[in-house]
Amino acid sequence: MKMVKVIGSVTSTVKDRGLEGFKLLFVQSVDIDLKGRKEYYIAVDTVGLGEDEVALMVTGSTAKRTDITKGRIVDGTLVAKVERIDLK
Amino acid sequence: MKMVKVIGSVTSTVKDRGLEGFKLLFVQSVDIDLKGRKEYYIAVDTVGLGEDEVALMVTGSTAKRTDITKGRIVDGTLVAKVERIDLK
Amino acid sequence: MKMVKVIGSVTSTVKDRGLEGFKLLFVQSVDIDLKGRKEYYIAVDTVGLGEDEVALMVTGSTAKRTDITKGRIVDGTLVAKVERIDLK
Amino acid sequence: MKMVKVIGSVTSTVKDRGLEGFKLLFVQSVDIDLKGRKEYYIAVDTVGLGEDEVALMVTGSTAKRTDITKGRIVDGTLVAKVERIDLK
Amino acid sequence: MKMVKVIGSVTSTVKDRGLEGFKLLFVQSVDIDLKGRKEYYIAVDTVGLGEDEVALMVTGSTAKRTDITKGRIVDGTLVAKVERIDLK
Repeated sequence: MKMVKVIGSVTSTVKDRGLEGFKLLFVQSVDIDLKGRKEYYIAVDTVGLGEDEVALMVTGSTAKRTDITKGRIVDGTLVAKVERIDLK
Repeated sequence: MKMVKVIGSVTSTVKDRGLEGFKLLFVQSVDIDLKGRKEYYIAVDTVGLGEDEVALMVTGSTAKRTDITKGRIVDGTLVAKVERIDLK
Repeated sequence: MKMVKVIGSVTSTVKDRGLEGFKLLFVQSVDIDLKGRKEYYIAVDTVGLGEDEVALMVTGSTAKRTDITKGRIVDGTLVAKVERIDLK
Repeated sequence: MKMVKVIGSVTSTVKDRGLEGFKLLFVQSVDIDLKGRKEYYIAVDTVGLGEDEVALMVTGSTAKRTDITKGRIVDGTLVAKVERIDLK
Repeated sequence: MKMVKVIGSVTSTVKDRGLEGFKLLFVQSVDIDLKGRKEYYIAVDTVGLGEDEVALMVTGSTAKRTDITKGRIVDGTLVAKVERIDLK
């Protein structure tokens, strides 16, 4: 999984029906110190995230295996809110 | 999903039959400010995009899961037109 | 497989049920000399790793093929502890 | 799909039987101006390409979905010859 | 496929049973002139490679499709020994 930060959202009305009903969040990869990298993705939210929250994103075929995204046209899904990071 | 901008198209007559009938768009990854990155892809359009329009591209196995690309030889599909971006 | 080093862990209570019960480790890609690269992942541990230990991580669909991760929402799994590296 | 240029070929007699009978082309990613990038791949040719020709390459699971590569041990397949590029 | 050079091996006794019995080679991506890049992988050998030999590596789901790796926990497999490279 990749650790990302929610930085916004995108709106699309003209889209494949496999994307209908999803909130599409704009996320940015973050480093170990939570600083943003220049890597951006649009991902489906399955856990109710707000702006600036840190999340785990699954990609590839795994992204369409959650209860919410099963069989949908999704290749990036936010599956966990990161509440604490413990580094040695 | 990746956010990309349509910058042109490619023509191919000698191709696998799994690609027949598709419009092949030339797209470029864009940053948060819609400036182009030096990453280019050829993708199948399923939503009717024009030049300079911004879209969401799915890749990998997801690209061949839309109604239009099912079972076809495609690993990059444009599935949504981005109409608005809201950043905090 | 990628060679990574365990550098910490993350805690998440709000998450997809496909991730429940897993220890989520924070790992960093390492070079041939075991120096860290600026590439970080969150991965599920299946072999009982401790901090600073070096492991092999599988990604993509393979990550959800171990006995422990079968059918779960995982795209990065630690499947081996690296005990020795022999270079010519 | 990625746009690549054919720059040569490789010969292998000791190989998995899933690769038998294929012509293995050495290809290089190209930019929008057809200049080569420092990214090289070995790909199976399904459309009869010659040196310096520009092609579309599919990767991942899609690469083993053409009539020729079905069920074979291939993760990069050339599926179209690019005859024309139209940029705005 | 990626072209890689065998530079060593790794030993692991604590590992998922899906990796048991495999020789795990340490490989490095090579450029067109066979110079190493700073990209390293651990891959399963199916063709009997020695150090410094150049090979083709398949990744992703293809890596677990050879007779030897079928159903195993592998995402990088060496499937061909490169004996000759012809560049224009």
